[in-house]
Amino acid sequence: MDTDPPLQLRVFDLNCWAIRYLSKVRQERIGMIGDTLSQEGFDLALLQEVWSERDYCELKQKLTACYPYSHYFKSGVIGSGFCVFSRYPILDTFLYQYSLNGYPYMLQHGDWFCGKAVGLLIIKICGIIFHVYVTHLLAEYCRDKDAYLPHRVVQAWELAQFIQHTSKGADVVLLGGDLNMHPGDMGIRLLRGWTGLRDSFADADRFEGCEDGYTLVPANCFTVNKELQPFPLGIRIDYILYKGLSRFVVKCDSLVTTTGTAPGKSIPYSDHEAVIATLSVRRGEEAKGSSGSNVGPELVDVVNEARTEVRARLHAAECQRDSNGRMASLALLLLLLQAAMGLSSLAGWDTPQPFPKFSSSLLSLLATVVLLLSMGLYIFHTIEVRMLQGTEEQMRLALQALQDKLSSM
Amino acid sequence: MDTDPPLQLRVFDLNCWAIRYLSKVRQERIGMIGDTLSQEGFDLALLQEVWSERDYCELKQKLTACYPYSHYFKSGVIGSGFCVFSRYPILDTFLYQYSLNGYPYMLQHGDWFCGKAVGLLIIKICGIIFHVYVTHLLAEYCRDKDAYLPHRVVQAWELAQFIQHTSKGADVVLLGGDLNMHPGDMGIRLLRGWTGLRDSFADADRFEGCEDGYTLVPANCFTVNKELQPFPLGIRIDYILYKGLSRFVVKCDSLVTTTGTAPGKSIPYSDHEAVIATLSVRRGEEAKGSSGSNVGPELVDVVNEARTEVRARLHAAECQRDSNGRMASLALLLLLLQAAMGLSSLAGWDTPQPFPKFSSSLLSLLATVVLLLSMGLYIFHTIEVRMLQGTEEQMRLALQALQDKLSSM
Repeated sequence: MDTDPPLQLRVFDLNCWAIRYLSKVRQERIGMIGDTLSQEGFDLALLQEVWSERDYCELKQKLTACYPYSHYFKSGVIGSGFCVFSRYPILDTFLYQYSLNGYPYMLQHGDWFCGKAVGLLIIKICGIIFHVYVTHLLAEYCRDKDAYLPHRVVQAWELAQFIQHTSKGADVVLLGGDLNMHPGDMGIRLLRGWTGLRDSFADADRFEGCEDGYTLVPANCFTVNKELQPFPLGIRIDYILYKGLSRFVVKCDSLVTTTGTAPGKSIPYSDHEAVIATLSVRRGEEAKGSSGSNVGPELVDVVNEARTEVRARLHAAECQRDSNGRMASLALLLLLLQAAMGLSSLAGWDTPQPFPKFSSSLLSLLATVVLLLSMGLYIFHTIEVRMLQGTEEQMRLALQALQDKLSSM
Repeated sequence: MDTDPPLQLRVFDLNCWAIRYLSKVRQERIGMIGDTLSQEGFDLALLQEVWSERDYCELKQKLTACYPYSHYFKSGVIGSGFCVFSRYPILDTFLYQYSLNGYPYMLQHGDWFCGKAVGLLIIKICGIIFHVYVTHLLAEYCRDKDAYLPHRVVQAWELAQFIQHTSKGADVVLLGGDLNMHPGDMGIRLLRGWTGLRDSFADADRFEGCEDGYTLVPANCFTVNKELQPFPLGIRIDYILYKGLSRFVVKCDSLVTTTGTAPGKSIPYSDHEAVIATLSVRRGEEAKGSSGSNVGPELVDVVNEARTEVRARLHAAECQRDSNGRMASLALLLLLLQAAMGLSSLAGWDTPQPFPKFSSSLLSLLATVVLLLSMGLYIFHTIEVRMLQGTEEQMRLALQALQDKLSSM
């Protein structure tokens, strides 16, 4: 590759909020997104929350000429929601599903059913190998009492680990997605500290868009303003992160976000703002500090902080597992008792029937439902406990390795 | 590293068959395994089916002096069963859980509850970076009518993909485990073709042990001979595979298997035979053909073969999903009807009660159980369908890339 001038790359990232039957004016917005991608001719478009494969197919059909390569990642009950459109050939893909992703009984949130994951695409552009990651982490429904924080921290850790383990063959690493974390949050610090990824908003030479790069803003008519109450100006939770490896240097020339409505339209593309980064990649000296994690006391601190969070949840999950186990045992005991009573009355033994038959069978119904549900939850929390224990152990090992590195520096 | 003489490494691999309350003389055998590992002083011991963490802790305690580093991988309801003991520092670990792993309702087999996975350990030995993988694939209960074949093929594909994506930073790749596949099986051909891993049995300069390297043999008193009927001499399903990368060449100097009973003992270590490989690693020229996959028409054929298998299961899984969906709808309808009848009789409307109350409530009980179970199965098969679709799509992409490479050769 001739590096003078450097390779310029325009990357589009958007959480499309395209839930069938639930998201407002979905089809119109998918049409708008398709039109814009087609007109603007980005190099890469990373989309999240395209839950319906039909929407993906519609986009694909519209974009075939401009983006001949695309991929839709499948996982979970209702999918991962990720799709990527690329002007350049996608050589390979790989999906890693996060081990924890909310709770199946929180039906009102539904995260558990989404199969949240990180998708990796290997794309070759002008001889440079790009490892492009697209992800969407667990949502934050209530910042003060965030029941999902430990799971999101585990996801951020797994994301960081996945990127580190799978990017060794890359020249450039790109991560786009809705991370559902504010820039200073523990998970972001963990991810960036561990991987050495740079934030396109913080590093951009030029920025245009919402104040402080916010991607959830009150000016967006689809945003539920109540959810933004503690942050009246907005929050930034959608990111394009990057780093150069193996003698490639990446710079963010400009970053643009949409500002509530799509340019030249009366409605926004989504309830999130789109993020558009223009990156330049050039061959250079080994990029200092950006090729790996920034080993320092701050990284030790944040891994420690994350480990504490994981531990706290581990304790709670153990309690929930045990209480569900007890509930299942009680329900089973009740069913066995009732079966014994039923059998004894069938055998004609002279035992008085303590309950009317109707109440007794209603009780059986209830006990069966409780047994099945609490058994399911027992299994779920057992898996949760194991994954938390595994993560905690991994973090312990990582801390040890970090401290060894620090002491030998 | 001075490569003259080359680095010699002794690797021990064993499926320990250590299921609490179920496996015969488990504690005695775990004790024997610990004693042997301690006496022999291997460099690495890769164990599978150590289901109980207590057994791991017992081994760890016994082996601390000889193997100061160890790791136990946690996943699923009853764990992954993997643990690794190492004489050299374990720098990092990572776990990838296979997306498909049998069926939750096949309780007699229980694979679904194990959380089968592949564990990666990064170990530095004399300055050489080893990526050590340990895994255990889905069992084969009946070779003629193998209901698990498609899931095992997906696991072999994911294993191959995981190794390829995470081994770019390695000097040497090692894979040990119970792959539950015969040497010529599609999954093994897929794995070896895609990754370029070499088989220590096929390549060993010296071999000592069971005929043809069998690791399940009738001479083992714990083997269920009925299961070995089609193969009266035994089968080989436990492997140590390897390859050298980045100018490192790996050779298998010798391979040894136990032969039914543990050396100097009256009983075997397990129902599987242990596999012990002595590998030598030396710095050399770029190892031709062993650093990546062996792109050739055979690889295209085996990916095609695997894709056909995945497609066939996809069709069956779609049928199962749909039939469970119908069953759940019917059960729900029945429950709604009964609720309506119950309400109308409570409201005192003059409708005759068509069933006695007792039968009616028994019917409700049955409908509720059917509803919950078929809903659970509907969710399970929906996930299965998505994962199969995703794998099929990945294989299509891989075939395209392979054919492009072949045509440009």
